[in-house]
Amino acid sequence: MTPAPPPSAAATAERREVDEQTVAALDAWWRAANYLSVGQIYLLGNALLREPLRAEHIKPRLLGHWGTTPGLNFLYGHLNRVIGERDTSAIFIAGPGHGGPGVVACTYLEGTYSEIYGDIDRTAAGVQRLMRQFSFPGGIPSHAAPQTPGSIHEGGELGYALSHAYGAAFDNPDLVVAAVVGDGEAETGPLATSWHSNKFLDPVTDGVVLPILHLNGWKIANPTVLARIPEEELLSLMRGYGHTPHLFSADADEPHDSVHRRFAGVLDAVFDEIADIKRRAAEGSLEGRPAWPMIVFRTPKGWTGPKEVDGQPTEGTWRSHQVPLVNARDTEEHTRLLEEWLRSYRPEELFDDDGALVPLVTALAPKRERRMSSNPVANGGLVRRDLRMPDFRDYAVDVPEPGQTTGEATRRTGEWMAEIMRRNPETFRLFGPDEVNSNRLGAVFEVTDRQWNAVTQEGDDHLAPNGRVMEMLSEHQCQGWLEGYLLSGRHGVFTSYEAFIHIVDSMFNQHAKWLEESQHLSWRAPVASLNYLLSSHVWRQDHNGFSHQDPGFIDLVVNKKANVVRVYLPFDTNTLLSTMDHCLRSTDYVNVVVAGKQPTANWLTMDEAVAHCTRGIGIFDWAGTEVEGRIPTSSSPAPATSRRSRRSPPPRSSASGCPSSRSASSTWSI
Amino acid sequence: MTPAPPPSAAATAERREVDEQTVAALDAWWRAANYLSVGQIYLLGNALLREPLRAEHIKPRLLGHWGTTPGLNFLYGHLNRVIGERDTSAIFIAGPGHGGPGVVACTYLEGTYSEIYGDIDRTAAGVQRLMRQFSFPGGIPSHAAPQTPGSIHEGGELGYALSHAYGAAFDNPDLVVAAVVGDGEAETGPLATSWHSNKFLDPVTDGVVLPILHLNGWKIANPTVLARIPEEELLSLMRGYGHTPHLFSADADEPHDSVHRRFAGVLDAVFDEIADIKRRAAEGSLEGRPAWPMIVFRTPKGWTGPKEVDGQPTEGTWRSHQVPLVNARDTEEHTRLLEEWLRSYRPEELFDDDGALVPLVTALAPKRERRMSSNPVANGGLVRRDLRMPDFRDYAVDVPEPGQTTGEATRRTGEWMAEIMRRNPETFRLFGPDEVNSNRLGAVFEVTDRQWNAVTQEGDDHLAPNGRVMEMLSEHQCQGWLEGYLLSGRHGVFTSYEAFIHIVDSMFNQHAKWLEESQHLSWRAPVASLNYLLSSHVWRQDHNGFSHQDPGFIDLVVNKKANVVRVYLPFDTNTLLSTMDHCLRSTDYVNVVVAGKQPTANWLTMDEAVAHCTRGIGIFDWAGTEVEGRIPTSSSPAPATSRRSRRSPPPRSSASGCPSSRSASSTWSI
Repeated sequence: MTPAPPPSAAATAERREVDEQTVAALDAWWRAANYLSVGQIYLLGNALLREPLRAEHIKPRLLGHWGTTPGLNFLYGHLNRVIGERDTSAIFIAGPGHGGPGVVACTYLEGTYSEIYGDIDRTAAGVQRLMRQFSFPGGIPSHAAPQTPGSIHEGGELGYALSHAYGAAFDNPDLVVAAVVGDGEAETGPLATSWHSNKFLDPVTDGVVLPILHLNGWKIANPTVLARIPEEELLSLMRGYGHTPHLFSADADEPHDSVHRRFAGVLDAVFDEIADIKRRAAEGSLEGRPAWPMIVFRTPKGWTGPKEVDGQPTEGTWRSHQVPLVNARDTEEHTRLLEEWLRSYRPEELFDDDGALVPLVTALAPKRERRMSSNPVANGGLVRRDLRMPDFRDYAVDVPEPGQTTGEATRRTGEWMAEIMRRNPETFRLFGPDEVNSNRLGAVFEVTDRQWNAVTQEGDDHLAPNGRVMEMLSEHQCQGWLEGYLLSGRHGVFTSYEAFIHIVDSMFNQHAKWLEESQHLSWRAPVASLNYLLSSHVWRQDHNGFSHQDPGFIDLVVNKKANVVRVYLPFDTNTLLSTMDHCLRSTDYVNVVVAGKQPTANWLTMDEAVAHCTRGIGIFDWAGTEVEGRIPTSSSPAPATSRRSRRSPPPRSSASGCPSSRSASSTWSI
Repeated sequence: MTPAPPPSAAATAERREVDEQTVAALDAWWRAANYLSVGQIYLLGNALLREPLRAEHIKPRLLGHWGTTPGLNFLYGHLNRVIGERDTSAIFIAGPGHGGPGVVACTYLEGTYSEIYGDIDRTAAGVQRLMRQFSFPGGIPSHAAPQTPGSIHEGGELGYALSHAYGAAFDNPDLVVAAVVGDGEAETGPLATSWHSNKFLDPVTDGVVLPILHLNGWKIANPTVLARIPEEELLSLMRGYGHTPHLFSADADEPHDSVHRRFAGVLDAVFDEIADIKRRAAEGSLEGRPAWPMIVFRTPKGWTGPKEVDGQPTEGTWRSHQVPLVNARDTEEHTRLLEEWLRSYRPEELFDDDGALVPLVTALAPKRERRMSSNPVANGGLVRRDLRMPDFRDYAVDVPEPGQTTGEATRRTGEWMAEIMRRNPETFRLFGPDEVNSNRLGAVFEVTDRQWNAVTQEGDDHLAPNGRVMEMLSEHQCQGWLEGYLLSGRHGVFTSYEAFIHIVDSMFNQHAKWLEESQHLSWRAPVASLNYLLSSHVWRQDHNGFSHQDPGFIDLVVNKKANVVRVYLPFDTNTLLSTMDHCLRSTDYVNVVVAGKQPTANWLTMDEAVAHCTRGIGIFDWAGTEVEGRIPTSSSPAPATSRRSRRSPPPRSSASGCPSSRSASSTWSI
């Protein structure tokens, strides 16, 4: 984001009145996005309604989520206006990821979708294919997914919108991440604590997260908690989370022009506040942590959808959550209602005779990389640069005889990691729930600090607004931040206790699925692997009892395919160094490294360690000499070539003890 | 809790000045509990300091967490005063479960510990054994655990204190659950959302949760977020969560008598507020959801511990988190400091010549079941009553030919479950993240509602302050509430989608460990099993893509021992009914039932279903006839008798199609 000059009061007042033409463009965007969204849910044919709607134009199985979609479309269009006017670099996180049709529609309006998927072009046939593919065999999922341009956020399991947003914002000082938080998702634990991420953001060296809490009031069948507490209580909650809330409410009866005009004013005020904070931060005149703005966006659920279906109120109720007209193909009445609904967006004004979008619709779409769907940050592999790596061999411990000396493997690794931080001051971070010191990686504090922008006091240990160690007592946050950081093109390690990493089982699953899907998308460039360094392993827990023991995370991990996961069990200092070096050079994997932090025997010299790691699993005799190398297993992954054909090979350097073949040939290193 | 009469202002003012003798008793309690806590961490011998402290009196390996302990001890003693004065039924949840030595010390002071563990009696030898066993081979864990009397909350993985507290409070209208929330734990996602539990509590039919946020400021090495935001922000957060916060701060220099007097005043004010809310609720004069009181309790970390060690500030800093004097056995200076620290509690005033506690120390301990460590609610098996079960055979579907008719298994099960709710209006609840209807269990709404005490509006579907269906979009909350509900002696089912149940993997692990440990404790009576009904199974996900698919939860579950877990895969309506009937009659298991909600073929008549379920796994031919019964597997659990010898046998009735032998003989039903 380029900070705007501080607006004078007059200038602000002036700007907040958007002109008629802009309102018309905002509304055209919204209608087009809504039309394409409804079309994706319902239509097989007659995509532009050039003839009366008949049953055979409608999908036989109706899937998708309408409820959140019009709100997402509204926000996306309004953000585009601001991005264009301020030349802002922004990305969009659709927390209510079930609003897949909306996000897909918006990226189609921006043109990105057609650039990536040539078949979905800006013709009548392209529109028809766009609609047909949605939640259709061989098509696309109903949620925001790796297939969705501009997305770094899976729309499956909910709760991680803000964590991902902050992860992307770290070390991207010019970026604004607009993060829409669904009011259902807001009830999850991970989301509830992720508001506190604002205490871990540096207004100078990091970007901005703009949370937009979308209160549309309903989940599948229940109202949402945050929509049903008094407004004063909600605002108090947001202030308690450290934000300056901006409240915006729209009801179904308000004329759309008025809604657009009012919301444009809110968004300008919010972006003025952001610009002001950034400016003061850059000048050094900002005292303490700023209360970043956030927006409470209260709208009807299924806004602009059918007001009533079968005598039941629908717009503004939970009945709009998924598909409001379930019998659109089966009853004439529903078919008629659907046609009426679709025509309410006046498609004849949105598409020309060939099915191409008219200029008014696309007037607000930013150009090229300013499009949120085309911002390279959201296709992080494009901006990823290899880490500048120190030679891990320089950190080798001397092993004159196997098992005769002892070492703390993670302590040495911390020294090497400190040097990585020194050489990569903007692209590498270490995440953990307050266990970096406990896991004996404390050497990194010779180079950096813990990022902390809350109150400090005398006696604090290495806290700074712009540290590179991220410690919050929430594994969900650590994982979510790291995922966002990696998917936006950077590198990192998550260190935790083995027993407690189960807390993020489901997040690991979702990230692994993301990687798996991404590998099938040629336009998604490989991202750095997600590296777990699990110390305090469960077989050596001195002061903690049964409560701290559970080795099952590895079981979970190896259930995934070998093209996305790797498990390493290095057993001494040199094998750990060699392993971590390899992991930090790899892409598109989840690497799980389990290693002790307590003093244990050193078995292998560095040359032996590299040889062992390259081979994979090994068997040792009692004297500590490796007597057998890699054991072939039935779970052997696909041949290395099949992978390398898509990916660029891992970086090679004389410093690396990890030939690229290992990445595909050794699932286990014991 | 017996609601007190509404205090007049004068009476309140009068009561808030506790007398000298009470202050002396409060301080004696605190000193004794602190002394015993420090002793547990450090001492092998010389437990009462009857001679000068020498190295050989000190444990060779020092383990445990001092930091949070003095705060827990302080609160426990003060709560005891209020319990005694008001004849309150209360239990204590130690969210900072690492404060194990404190909770153990308090239950020893109450006498419960010696009643359960006869060897740890109130003699000098008993005190010595109490100290020695802590974090010692063959002894007890360093965290609150099943071994701890009065605990329903494992002190391992953090984040569930409030969820457990609310679970225990549901349907216990006279109970107060004092839930201490650590400020570290408060950073976890599950804890952050669990504050909202107050929207799911009926002030008439449910008990009271009193959250006490213990701000001692530090985690292992980092400050805590909530201790480092401005006070106004913190209070705003608590008000936003719907509470009336009472702020209490103590610093290390304040004389203890003054601290006791001030806190007693706060606690009286809080309990007056609680009594007032309960009274108004009972009278029907309460408008809407009350803003229940909560306490912000800000104290130094490691309060009353060494102020400085090796020239480093210790009391009030992260250095107090675990063991502040790490070289107590190794250096004379540390030995001297430890002795000084221990003697600061004046043990000679706390124990008589035989090592028994003097009357002043135990003056505030309530009697019998009013002791929080002896409240039967916290040993839920004692109050558990079998459910009044309708005959599941009455809900059988007719199966004239295998596979010729179809049914929705969960829909029928919902009808049967509705009847269970009708017959057990105070001891059975259904928990789920907004998926009860989606999982087709909606028939329960003919009998009950969703519990909801936030704002309602026209068009809401079955919301009521005292419903028995608990739906919040947080699997963590559902699981935590249910665990608390079960461990306090009631029954329940958690229904969710199979793909998303991984969210609570680690909570399942912890609960399974709790059950495993409890089975070794003869004084812990069996509790109802934790039943998962996972519908929308992953192999049949119509409108959701890859993002909604992950069958791995079963893998996680079967990693646990057969004496605590069971997995059932019933394949049609009658097998599901038979399975669920069995599960709801069982105790001390985690039962995982995976069953489809979509229409599928009915294969077995009820008689066949019962026979099949009794045998276990089966193989069917293509016509749907079972051709082979149970297949022996290498994972066969322990013989039924070994289990039944400790447990009472499952209830038998003519209605049950589930002989007790099945609970031990069939791990899988396919």
